[in-house]
Amino acid sequence: MADPQRIWTAALVVIGDEILSGRTQDRNVAQIATWLNVQGIRLTEVRVVADDAAAIAEAVNTLRARNDYLFTTGGIGPTHDDITVDAIAGALGVEVEINAQARTMLEGYYETRGGLTDARLRMARVPVGACLIENRMSGAPGIRHGNIFIMAGVPHITAGMLESLTGKLEGGLPLLSATVGCWVAESEIADLLAEAERGHEGCQIGSYPFFRDGRTGANFVVRSTDQAVLDRCIADLGLALEAGGWPVIAGGI
Amino acid sequence: MADPQRIWTAALVVIGDEILSGRTQDRNVAQIATWLNVQGIRLTEVRVVADDAAAIAEAVNTLRARNDYLFTTGGIGPTHDDITVDAIAGALGVEVEINAQARTMLEGYYETRGGLTDARLRMARVPVGACLIENRMSGAPGIRHGNIFIMAGVPHITAGMLESLTGKLEGGLPLLSATVGCWVAESEIADLLAEAERGHEGCQIGSYPFFRDGRTGANFVVRSTDQAVLDRCIADLGLALEAGGWPVIAGGI
Repeated sequence: MADPQRIWTAALVVIGDEILSGRTQDRNVAQIATWLNVQGIRLTEVRVVADDAAAIAEAVNTLRARNDYLFTTGGIGPTHDDITVDAIAGALGVEVEINAQARTMLEGYYETRGGLTDARLRMARVPVGACLIENRMSGAPGIRHGNIFIMAGVPHITAGMLESLTGKLEGGLPLLSATVGCWVAESEIADLLAEAERGHEGCQIGSYPFFRDGRTGANFVVRSTDQAVLDRCIADLGLALEAGGWPVIAGGI
Repeated sequence: MADPQRIWTAALVVIGDEILSGRTQDRNVAQIATWLNVQGIRLTEVRVVADDAAAIAEAVNTLRARNDYLFTTGGIGPTHDDITVDAIAGALGVEVEINAQARTMLEGYYETRGGLTDARLRMARVPVGACLIENRMSGAPGIRHGNIFIMAGVPHITAGMLESLTGKLEGGLPLLSATVGCWVAESEIADLLAEAERGHEGCQIGSYPFFRDGRTGANFVVRSTDQAVLDRCIADLGLALEAGGWPVIAGGI
């Protein structure tokens, strides 16, 4: 019987010189993390690597071995800097082949867009043994190989691929979270927070300071897989803050 | 004599459950990457790890060994979830001590803010052998230990710490970049791009598609350490796109 307490994990490899150069602000980490939480899967580690086959292979092989799932984003387009498929095939020790179904999909997509050129056919290349992840946004599919999910780098295309995977991956209990904010310097209530965490088994509390209009505050984020435990911890924390005379912001900001 | 062609590298470890849960959108990768470029240092890899001592230690020890510099962000505040200093001291095999200078700074900062409590004194703790990185934004300094730079997680505080390090780290030639955009599907001009890269030694060209108002386009980002080579590549690429009849967007979008 499946263990309901089992924690399912995923890692993410973000592939792209444009992230490491600072040119592009990554959006996929937050998007995939949020989606994974809903699937009952925890994101344990992210690596951002360059468009470099050895760097991709190292990250993929390390992280796929120690997580239930491994996602990658970026580098699956038609241009010379798109090397993800070849790098992952190399990491797995398998050849690259043209996937017949992907070829058909691309033929359909490009029928009215100038036809399927050699460059576009690159997007039908997959590591041998892979299947496809549907992409409703544009012609080129994502790729699944074992526990590896190879996704687009453009966030709204990634979103479409995630949507097509929703509910299809085995996971555990979703990690729930709730927030209470307060106009207080976190350093003033560090002990109160540590006590609240100790007093509510199965909860973790994160403290995230903010500065608004010259005032100091913090959001306290409680995480648990148990809604009742979470609710109790948030309520108790709010009461403790109020009892100390600090203005509570329900839900945080 | 220093080799002017030497490439200086840095890695970044982003520490924080809030990034891996999707709650917080990281801003430090892009900020630090951009700053490093100006210092003539290349960001080669980023890892995002949880508030977990073993995960922090693994990332720090791997990346500090193979880069000239290692930066970390997050986990240096006063609360129970701030474990970065202890985790890095553990990774280095050194003890943690109260830094006298940091203590004096914090005493000054908190003199009119309720005094230096035990929780606040946590922010004066450093791995033995460390020196401080100035923080003009709030009381708690960053920490330098060997080639490791331990920075705040809150982006505007990180920015202040970076500012105080500007020009102080040895680097090589800054990596320059320039962009030309075009209203074209990147798959149509994949060959043209690959040829442009081959024809301009010392340039890398990245292709980044976008979608605006129902139209497809792409930005082509050329990177080089040589301004003249970069200018020539951008000019030639623009001419080649125009010759093909595709509408060029100077500077990209």
